[in-house]
Amino acid sequence: MNSSKSPLIVVNLKTYLQGTGEKAVTIAKACKNVSEKYNVDIGVSPQFCDIYQVASQVDVPVYSQHIDGIDGGSHTGQILAQCVKDAGAIGTLVNHSERRLTLADIDSSVKAAGKAGLSTIVCTNNVNTSASAASLGPDYIAIEPPELIGTGVPVSSADPQVVKGSVDAVKNVNEDVKVLCGAGISKGEDLQAALELGSAGVLLASGVVKAEDPEKALEHLVSQI
Amino acid sequence: MNSSKSPLIVVNLKTYLQGTGEKAVTIAKACKNVSEKYNVDIGVSPQFCDIYQVASQVDVPVYSQHIDGIDGGSHTGQILAQCVKDAGAIGTLVNHSERRLTLADIDSSVKAAGKAGLSTIVCTNNVNTSASAASLGPDYIAIEPPELIGTGVPVSSADPQVVKGSVDAVKNVNEDVKVLCGAGISKGEDLQAALELGSAGVLLASGVVKAEDPEKALEHLVSQI
Amino acid sequence: MNSSKSPLIVVNLKTYLQGTGEKAVTIAKACKNVSEKYNVDIGVSPQFCDIYQVASQVDVPVYSQHIDGIDGGSHTGQILAQCVKDAGAIGTLVNHSERRLTLADIDSSVKAAGKAGLSTIVCTNNVNTSASAASLGPDYIAIEPPELIGTGVPVSSADPQVVKGSVDAVKNVNEDVKVLCGAGISKGEDLQAALELGSAGVLLASGVVKAEDPEKALEHLVSQI
Amino acid sequence: MNSSKSPLIVVNLKTYLQGTGEKAVTIAKACKNVSEKYNVDIGVSPQFCDIYQVASQVDVPVYSQHIDGIDGGSHTGQILAQCVKDAGAIGTLVNHSERRLTLADIDSSVKAAGKAGLSTIVCTNNVNTSASAASLGPDYIAIEPPELIGTGVPVSSADPQVVKGSVDAVKNVNEDVKVLCGAGISKGEDLQAALELGSAGVLLASGVVKAEDPEKALEHLVSQI
Repeated sequence: MNSSKSPLIVVNLKTYLQGTGEKAVTIAKACKNVSEKYNVDIGVSPQFCDIYQVASQVDVPVYSQHIDGIDGGSHTGQILAQCVKDAGAIGTLVNHSERRLTLADIDSSVKAAGKAGLSTIVCTNNVNTSASAASLGPDYIAIEPPELIGTGVPVSSADPQVVKGSVDAVKNVNEDVKVLCGAGISKGEDLQAALELGSAGVLLASGVVKAEDPEKALEHLVSQI
Repeated sequence: MNSSKSPLIVVNLKTYLQGTGEKAVTIAKACKNVSEKYNVDIGVSPQFCDIYQVASQVDVPVYSQHIDGIDGGSHTGQILAQCVKDAGAIGTLVNHSERRLTLADIDSSVKAAGKAGLSTIVCTNNVNTSASAASLGPDYIAIEPPELIGTGVPVSSADPQVVKGSVDAVKNVNEDVKVLCGAGISKGEDLQAALELGSAGVLLASGVVKAEDPEKALEHLVSQI
Repeated sequence: MNSSKSPLIVVNLKTYLQGTGEKAVTIAKACKNVSEKYNVDIGVSPQFCDIYQVASQVDVPVYSQHIDGIDGGSHTGQILAQCVKDAGAIGTLVNHSERRLTLADIDSSVKAAGKAGLSTIVCTNNVNTSASAASLGPDYIAIEPPELIGTGVPVSSADPQVVKGSVDAVKNVNEDVKVLCGAGISKGEDLQAALELGSAGVLLASGVVKAEDPEKALEHLVSQI
Repeated sequence: MNSSKSPLIVVNLKTYLQGTGEKAVTIAKACKNVSEKYNVDIGVSPQFCDIYQVASQVDVPVYSQHIDGIDGGSHTGQILAQCVKDAGAIGTLVNHSERRLTLADIDSSVKAAGKAGLSTIVCTNNVNTSASAASLGPDYIAIEPPELIGTGVPVSSADPQVVKGSVDAVKNVNEDVKVLCGAGISKGEDLQAALELGSAGVLLASGVVKAEDPEKALEHLVSQI
């Protein structure tokens, strides 16, 4: 996946009721349709309990919203990378701003994902922590200023420096790590701006999941690339 | 389910590799077989990502290992009661010793489970906290002294006072709440002792999940009731 | 202290700059002055690093803002009851809404405080959790609806039911536990209303700490009892 | 302090009863005596409640065991950098293995310390996280493999690679950040080995605090440099 030329777009379904159960499958199908029509990589990140259903019904890259950096064993209510993988996911978010981890746990989560063959998107909140996360060797870093999440104000225009700065800082530490950005992204021009700032794609959520017609919202996003 | 006369046995699969993916389905089938043969209630608590697969393939009561006390919305990597319910679970563990919650969050988890129609088993560590949890109105309280979990030393013989004391203290606060016990339970005599101390059943894990033949281990457990 | 007839008022200095270092000592002196003039119990809860200074310079009951339920040993950055006691505190808040603990940790904190001879004020957020905390046997429970904290809208008039309900529920579980209330309290009429609802006093913070003249604010609070 | 040539030794008193209250002051005096006699930098890290007493009675560099990355305001039971500074500390540990923080919080703690004029020692657990922490610009990184803490088995001989690897990785990211190491350090030869591996000093705890004679233990440590 890392070798792909087209931007990566990951739609985080969070725990939105509009993206739970059967509705997760519906949005995943929208992702697949738009992905094929416009030849872009679009992944979906449903709740844990929906991963199996989405992955077995729709041919779309599925990302877990989180994993714990544990091995199989005596851990109740934790997320085992192997279980996520067996359910059909191909990757995982790590350290999303709504599920922050300790530095030691981000490191062990990235390692556990690697062992299980899952790609990793480590979320960060500023230039410093983006550089910091790059040392842990994830596939992607997703810079998302928490104060812009869910606002509809796109990071790519509200704070271009944090995107550009993260791209540069990450490249400085580890050239193999790509940078996504997120927070407030919903329109084609937001994605366009994000790519021009050097990011390899975007993470988005409410702009698609809570849209009246998620498929149209996605088309609107990618049709201008 | 609360009106059932027979003891309730819940097999917690934790994140054991022996209870992940297809193997979760296999153990669930063992639970169903033994349940029918001996006319006892046996539930299974798989990892989140395995709930859908287990519940859609085996007619057995499925319990989530944890839920968060949240409504649908902007929460990434959290466990929404409705999603767990849609995936096929009929209940959930709350506050397991390997997934402790704040008091406020136990309260909101029990409420969220109730709204979604999930029964609740709140785990506690001593007599005081069992009494405390009873005020929150769960269906069951499961007293499990953490120092005995995974030891093979059964709580029912190692610390009968904590079981008896919890049964009495919980009844004092709220007569509608039943008490389970757990930690080190694996043999028929452990279950027998637990029931004699006033508990309504047991929570167990490694004794079944890591057994060479989980179905035989379960038969061994319930055949002497 | 539990045998006192007059209401208990605890001023939580939080991490307000207006209540840090020398300014903590100044507010503690105001507490002492007003306490003596109006014959009411007024305690102060400074930051950990200020406990020694406040307790050694002012003859006022000092409460820690939190303790951990640990014994002496290999714990870095934790709050040991004995250390808090040695520094001069006579009690501690436990489970404040800005420092929530697991149920097991509230229990061990209350026990650790008891062993060290510190009185305990366990904070709760609703009637259920107030009843729940009563089973752990603290000296006081302080019911503070989080949504009212810092608003200036007093719990005693905005949500009298949560105060009255907590007083009744706590008495039902353990008659020895007294109930305080907090959130939005700043005026004499708020305190008056709180006492009429059956509470034994109040917890307050910004209304005094951020007042132009904390001593006058305290006088204003207690002069009408 | 950063410009000092001699190694830095920080004695973490943790919550050991042997290092609480008056005993914290006694150990601090031992640090000062040995520091002057052997011309090495020796700092002490007492519990929060003991910082004021230690700093006002002994002329020794005092480090807090933790700070939170907050500004003054409505935070109860949190550690404000300014309060720690006012109490007399000159620096702080951050992210000790017994007080892990999220990546975002390590970043904000280092920034809050900087604003308050406190130097920072960020603790890490392996080479990857050491490199990671270097991007946050602390004064020191202290690499301490958690599995060796409190064992008496010194990191410098049990796992020299993690020390050497951290020194190299940190230098690669930020040349201004010095590396300490810790875990199991108690003898002169351990310190010697640590310095030869490129570290700028050591963090130690039980080897001094629980020694029959802490001053002799410190002399034993530094007399061979």
